[in-house]
Amino acid sequence: MPSHLALLSCLLVLVLSLDKFLLHYLKRRWFSAGSGATGPKGAAKSRRSMATAKWSETAMLVIDMQKDFVDPAMRSPMLVAGGEAVVPAVAEAVAVARKRGIFLVWVVREHDPSGRDVELFRRHHYSGGKGPTVKGLKGAELADGLVIKEGEYKLVKTRFSAFFATHLDSVLKTAGIKNLVIVGVQTPNCIRQTVFDAVALDYEKVTVLIDATAAARPEIHLSNIRDMKNIGVETPTLEEWR
Amino acid sequence: MPSHLALLSCLLVLVLSLDKFLLHYLKRRWFSAGSGATGPKGAAKSRRSMATAKWSETAMLVIDMQKDFVDPAMRSPMLVAGGEAVVPAVAEAVAVARKRGIFLVWVVREHDPSGRDVELFRRHHYSGGKGPTVKGLKGAELADGLVIKEGEYKLVKTRFSAFFATHLDSVLKTAGIKNLVIVGVQTPNCIRQTVFDAVALDYEKVTVLIDATAAARPEIHLSNIRDMKNIGVETPTLEEWR
Amino acid sequence: MPSHLALLSCLLVLVLSLDKFLLHYLKRRWFSAGSGATGPKGAAKSRRSMATAKWSETAMLVIDMQKDFVDPAMRSPMLVAGGEAVVPAVAEAVAVARKRGIFLVWVVREHDPSGRDVELFRRHHYSGGKGPTVKGLKGAELADGLVIKEGEYKLVKTRFSAFFATHLDSVLKTAGIKNLVIVGVQTPNCIRQTVFDAVALDYEKVTVLIDATAAARPEIHLSNIRDMKNIGVETPTLEEWR
Amino acid sequence: MPSHLALLSCLLVLVLSLDKFLLHYLKRRWFSAGSGATGPKGAAKSRRSMATAKWSETAMLVIDMQKDFVDPAMRSPMLVAGGEAVVPAVAEAVAVARKRGIFLVWVVREHDPSGRDVELFRRHHYSGGKGPTVKGLKGAELADGLVIKEGEYKLVKTRFSAFFATHLDSVLKTAGIKNLVIVGVQTPNCIRQTVFDAVALDYEKVTVLIDATAAARPEIHLSNIRDMKNIGVETPTLEEWR
Repeated sequence: MPSHLALLSCLLVLVLSLDKFLLHYLKRRWFSAGSGATGPKGAAKSRRSMATAKWSETAMLVIDMQKDFVDPAMRSPMLVAGGEAVVPAVAEAVAVARKRGIFLVWVVREHDPSGRDVELFRRHHYSGGKGPTVKGLKGAELADGLVIKEGEYKLVKTRFSAFFATHLDSVLKTAGIKNLVIVGVQTPNCIRQTVFDAVALDYEKVTVLIDATAAARPEIHLSNIRDMKNIGVETPTLEEWR
Repeated sequence: MPSHLALLSCLLVLVLSLDKFLLHYLKRRWFSAGSGATGPKGAAKSRRSMATAKWSETAMLVIDMQKDFVDPAMRSPMLVAGGEAVVPAVAEAVAVARKRGIFLVWVVREHDPSGRDVELFRRHHYSGGKGPTVKGLKGAELADGLVIKEGEYKLVKTRFSAFFATHLDSVLKTAGIKNLVIVGVQTPNCIRQTVFDAVALDYEKVTVLIDATAAARPEIHLSNIRDMKNIGVETPTLEEWR
Repeated sequence: MPSHLALLSCLLVLVLSLDKFLLHYLKRRWFSAGSGATGPKGAAKSRRSMATAKWSETAMLVIDMQKDFVDPAMRSPMLVAGGEAVVPAVAEAVAVARKRGIFLVWVVREHDPSGRDVELFRRHHYSGGKGPTVKGLKGAELADGLVIKEGEYKLVKTRFSAFFATHLDSVLKTAGIKNLVIVGVQTPNCIRQTVFDAVALDYEKVTVLIDATAAARPEIHLSNIRDMKNIGVETPTLEEWR
Repeated sequence: MPSHLALLSCLLVLVLSLDKFLLHYLKRRWFSAGSGATGPKGAAKSRRSMATAKWSETAMLVIDMQKDFVDPAMRSPMLVAGGEAVVPAVAEAVAVARKRGIFLVWVVREHDPSGRDVELFRRHHYSGGKGPTVKGLKGAELADGLVIKEGEYKLVKTRFSAFFATHLDSVLKTAGIKNLVIVGVQTPNCIRQTVFDAVALDYEKVTVLIDATAAARPEIHLSNIRDMKNIGVETPTLEEWR
C-alpha cells in the first residue's frame, strides 16, 4: 500500500517538475508534424540573436560519435540506446558549423587494447585486445556519414569529459575560442561532464543541442538537460540554433 | 491535445524507469516508520560486508556544508533548498568516520570578495564584497554543529568539483587513499562533479550517502543518484553504511 | 691527470657558453658603480617599448616571499641563501606594479602541520607540527616589508609551480591576463617551474626580473635564467623593466 | 678591465660549484677508456641495491626520441645538438627495461599541421603544414633503431612535460607505478619538466639516466642534472643503473 502512495507522490513531483521547456521539447520531438510551434516569427527572432554571435570565437565539440557507441551492428557493450537516432542531426549540425566557419573538434575515445587507460568500472570489457573503441579497430571509427575534414581537429580522450587530462582547453583558449556548441553522446556522461568542465573553465557561452545529443533513455536525457540549464547552459534544438 | 498525449507518454516512461532502487529509497525516506525493510537481518549483512573495507584507505569528503549553502537564516542566493535537512545526517556520518579512523576532508568554497574566482554565471552575486561564501565572512563558515578537528584537512575549492584545480587528488593518493565516501550539498553540482571526477581519477570505490546529500528538489536528487549508480558508484543510506 | 684535462675542457666549454647577456648581467650586478652600461639612451628606448605593454593584461606573480624562505632569523631548513638580498628589489617591483595598475598575485606555500601536502622529498622536515611554512605559523608569513593590499590576490600552492594543482590559470585567464611578470624565490624550483608552466599555458609574454629573483648560488640562478631565455622568456633587470 | 675581473670571478664560482659528481661524470663520459672508476666492486654494490627495486612498479619514459629531434638528416629547426649521440644509449636502456619487465611508455610530440597545438614561441615554424613532428610526417617517427613493441604504450603530448595536459599520470598510477626512469631529449625542457612534474606528482623514486639524455650543449645538460639532483632525483649513468 505505502509503495503505491510513494509511486503516486513521486509521479506528482515529477509532473510538477516538468517545466514548460521540457513539455515543449517533448512535443516537438515526438509530435513534430508541422505544428508550427517555432513558426516564421520565432525562427526569425532566433536567427537574429544568433547573428550577433561571433562564429570565429565558437568551437563545436562532436563527442564520441564512434561506431561502438552509436552503431547497433557493432554489438558493443558500450552502445548508447538513443545514439543511432541522432546521427543525422549531428551530421546536420556539423554541416551548419562548417558553413559558419566554426572550428570543429572531433572528440573520440581510443583505448589501448589492454584497457589500461579505460575507467576501472569498464575495464572488464577489455580482454583479448578487443574492447570497445580500441585504437585502430573498427569500433573506434566515426559513425558512417561522419568525416573529419582538413582544418578540423581530432582530440583523443580516455575519460568522460573531453577536458579531463587532455590538451583541449589549451587548443581552444589559444585559438581565442570563447563559446562552445556540443553534440554527440551520451548525455549523462561524456556530454554532461564536458559541459560542466566547460563551465568550470569559464567558457562564456556553452550550448548543448538537445536533439543532437542522446542518452540511453529519454528521462535520463531530460533530467541532465535540466541540470545543465540550471547552471546557465543554453539548450536549443538544432532547428532553433541553426 | 497532442500536449496531453506527450505528458502521458512522458509519465509512462518515467514510471517504467523507476527501478527498484528508487522505489525502495523513496519508501524508506518518506515512510520509514519501522517497516522493517532493513531489519536486523539486512543490517547484519551490511555490517559484515563493511567490515572488509579498509578504513585507513578511505577518506570522507564533506562538501560545501557552509552556512550560505545550508542555513536559511543567511538568506543567501546560494541556499540549497534541501540542505538544512541533511545537516544532522552529515554530522552523524562524520562521527562514524571519526570512530573508524577515516581521513576527513572538509571541502569548502572560499571566494575573493571581488568574485573574480567564482564561475562566470554566478559572478553577478558579488558586488560590494558581499557575495556568497566570501573568505572570512560568516556565510563561508561551516554550518552550526560541524567542526574541523585536529588531524582533519580543510580543502578550498572555487568550482563544483573538489578535484577541479585543487591539490585534493595529490593529498589523497599520497596518503594511500583508494576509497571515497561523499556527503554534503548539492547533488547535481558539487556532489556529482566530485563523484564523476573521482571515478575518472580511478578511485576504486566511490560511495555517496544518499540521505546525507541533498539537492533543491527530490527529483533532482534522485535522477543524479541514478546516473551515479550507472557508472558504478555505491549509493547506500547512512543507516546501511554505518 | 685526466681529471685535470676534464676540468680544463669543462672550463673552456663554460667560458664559451657565457653569452653576452650573462656577462652584461654579471657586470651590472657586481660592478654596478655607475658604469653607465644602460645609460640615458638605453633606458629611454626601454621605457618606450614598455609603454606599449598593456598593464591591464599583465599580472605580477610574487612567489614564496615568506619568512621561512628569505629570513635567516627563522633558521628554516628551507632558507634560500640568496633570498634575503632580493627582498628590497621585490618590494620595489611590487611598488612599480601597483603604480601601473598591474594585478598582483601573492603566491605562497601553506602546508598542513602533518606535512601531508608537501613533496615527498621534503616531508621529513615535518614533525611535531613545526615544518617550514606551516599554515598559521610565523614562517609562512610574508617577509617583513611585504604586505598584501586590498584588491590583490593571495594564492596558496603546495608544489613548486604556482600553476600546479591550483586555480591560478583560471583566475588569470578569466581576468584577461595575457602577460606575466615574475619575482621571488627560488630560481631553479618555484620560479622556473612557474615560468615553464606559464609558457606551456600560452601566456603571450612571460618576464622574469633577474635581480628580483634568487637562488642558493649565483651559477644556479644564471644557468636557469639562460634556460628560460632559450624558450622565449624575457629576462630584464628591475631597472630595465621599470 | 672590470669585465675581465667579472669573467674571472665567474669562472671561479663555476669551478667551485662543480662538485664531485660532475667531475666524476665528465671523467667517465669523455675519458671512459677503462679507467676502472666504477670497477667490479662499485658495479656489484650498484647491482645489489638495484635488486631491491620492484620493476613491476617501475615505468621507463622514453621522451621525444623522434627523427626531428635527433636525426640531423631531417634538417629540423628542432634538432637537439646532442641528441643523435645518445640514441644507442637510449636503445640499450630500453633493452634493459624490457628484460626487467619494466613498463615502457614512449612519449612523443605529434602536432597538428597548422601548429595550433604547439607552444606560441615555436608556432612560427609551422606553415604550409610542414612544421616539426607533425602527426603522420616522417619527422614525427621514432629515430631509426627504436620501435614500440606490443604491450608498450605510446603517449602523445603537446608541451614539454609528458604530464602536461595528458593522461600519463592516470595510466601510471592506476597501473601501480611508483618509480620512473627517464631517458631521451632534451634535458632542460622535456626531460626536466617531466622530472619536476613527476616529483610534484609524488612518484617515490625518479631516476634520470644522465648519459641516455642530452641537451644542445654539455653545460646545459650538467646544470640541469645538478638542479634535478637537488630535489632528490637519482642521476646514475646507464652503466650504474643496468
